[in-house]
Amino acid sequence: MESNETTIAPPDAGGAATFDNAPIGVFDSGFGGLTVAREIAKELPRESIVYLGDSARCPYGPRSLDEVDGFVQQIGAWLVERGVKLVVIACNTATAAGLSHAQQTFPVPVIGVVEPGARAAAHATKNRRVGVIATKATVESDAYTKAIRNLDAGITVFSTATPRFVEIAEQGLRMAEGPIEDFTSLVSTVYIRPAFQEIAQEYLEPLRRCDIDTLVLGCTHFPLLKALIGGVVGRDVTLISSAQEAAHDVAHILSRRGALASDDHEPCYDFYTTGEDVEEFRSFGARVFRTDIDRVGRVTFPS
Amino acid sequence: MESNETTIAPPDAGGAATFDNAPIGVFDSGFGGLTVAREIAKELPRESIVYLGDSARCPYGPRSLDEVDGFVQQIGAWLVERGVKLVVIACNTATAAGLSHAQQTFPVPVIGVVEPGARAAAHATKNRRVGVIATKATVESDAYTKAIRNLDAGITVFSTATPRFVEIAEQGLRMAEGPIEDFTSLVSTVYIRPAFQEIAQEYLEPLRRCDIDTLVLGCTHFPLLKALIGGVVGRDVTLISSAQEAAHDVAHILSRRGALASDDHEPCYDFYTTGEDVEEFRSFGARVFRTDIDRVGRVTFPS
Repeated sequence: MESNETTIAPPDAGGAATFDNAPIGVFDSGFGGLTVAREIAKELPRESIVYLGDSARCPYGPRSLDEVDGFVQQIGAWLVERGVKLVVIACNTATAAGLSHAQQTFPVPVIGVVEPGARAAAHATKNRRVGVIATKATVESDAYTKAIRNLDAGITVFSTATPRFVEIAEQGLRMAEGPIEDFTSLVSTVYIRPAFQEIAQEYLEPLRRCDIDTLVLGCTHFPLLKALIGGVVGRDVTLISSAQEAAHDVAHILSRRGALASDDHEPCYDFYTTGEDVEEFRSFGARVFRTDIDRVGRVTFPS
Repeated sequence: MESNETTIAPPDAGGAATFDNAPIGVFDSGFGGLTVAREIAKELPRESIVYLGDSARCPYGPRSLDEVDGFVQQIGAWLVERGVKLVVIACNTATAAGLSHAQQTFPVPVIGVVEPGARAAAHATKNRRVGVIATKATVESDAYTKAIRNLDAGITVFSTATPRFVEIAEQGLRMAEGPIEDFTSLVSTVYIRPAFQEIAQEYLEPLRRCDIDTLVLGCTHFPLLKALIGGVVGRDVTLISSAQEAAHDVAHILSRRGALASDDHEPCYDFYTTGEDVEEFRSFGARVFRTDIDRVGRVTFPS
């Protein structure tokens, strides 16, 4: 009906393919981005994924934006060399620091997690008071505030850095056994609950007092703490997972460009870490990703 | 599964409704916005719509952004008084001129047509060369270039003002009989084709030479010329209709907020014009909107 719009033929089409089985590249400072990778695998089960966790330099949160921008360039170039059709910066800090530069540098589309999360929050808030919890670097970059207010200038954004949530998520990962949706099952353990409750009150009580009705989990580690955070802020507050929203955008972009994998494509999940402990990465990774990982390798970047 | 996210309870919930049968407010300088209204009615067949066409002050394109911003404030306030739950600025010029101000002023969400169209274009382009055709005011506001590059800083945007397309669309409306999807059926008439072909070549040839693979129809009149424009730029160029994209966003926002109309709601379509010829508005309106209009009224604003 809408003739030109639904015909997503490649511009260089000479009867060319309307699918692309090349993998999607996803990276993060460590495990957090696996929450994005698993949403992509859930929404697009035919897509292959190459994931890189930069564990050797994790966390990115306390680093300068310039330094993180350099990491994004390095890792993005490595992914592009591996033939990915799209790069997802599955880390809020790295998105704030390096998305725009990466988009200008790489020959494939690059998407981050900030804009999809900001859009979901702008659409979800009813009282136009949105909270954002993120790393120090992400909060200081003002990336969410700008992105949300760019979509709706009537929204007031309250951001707060919650660096210890990253530690708690990493600690929970080490303790968890079996697949991990979030840490609800760990909520009663002595390790998580007391530490979490105290810190969560301290971090989240000021946001509650700001009367927010929507809270952006502005760090890809935080979906792992979703049920715990929800328990503190209350059910009236809608929690936005950038991971899920970014996966929707990946699906939308590939579908628009006629670049989805073919229906009969057997996806392949290759994981790489810059950290020394490849086995730990395989074990944690498989639990967050909740699907078998085909290969785990180690990569080193010159510093 | 994603507990807080899927429970879209209103923040003031005391067992309150999860639907909202209030109408959606849509306005434009004239008939163009009816392409947006019809996409909304198609995607959300239970929603009531109050449409205002500011025919008395049409076209907005040649006016200053400040003047148009004043019109947006005036019309938005009128729609809010009529109890709309959401305002759609179904006009690119008015979006560029007044969206941000309206979002800061009105107590209901306000969406425009620029961001949804820009996002669709950023997602669709493969060679990252996007063309935009719009009114002079929209092009001069740089709204599309900013919105597209904000989403992907690697995209080059080529914009051109095509004011005479608005005249042609209006002329086509006057000539057409029966429901109008676009003017394909009129392409062979002496009135449309020679005028259109000559003007279209002049406007679109420079964009073709820029090697664009995606073209944003950055004026809500232009979906009416879609097949004609597509014929000139060729099938390799994906045409983006902001009307359709804005309707998707309306659906997304209302669904996120639990503010869709109930399944058994009988929608009501009320149309208003500031122009003198109410009957002409009813006749043109019903043809573009392609659904019966319940009421057509006249409104006058103090100048």
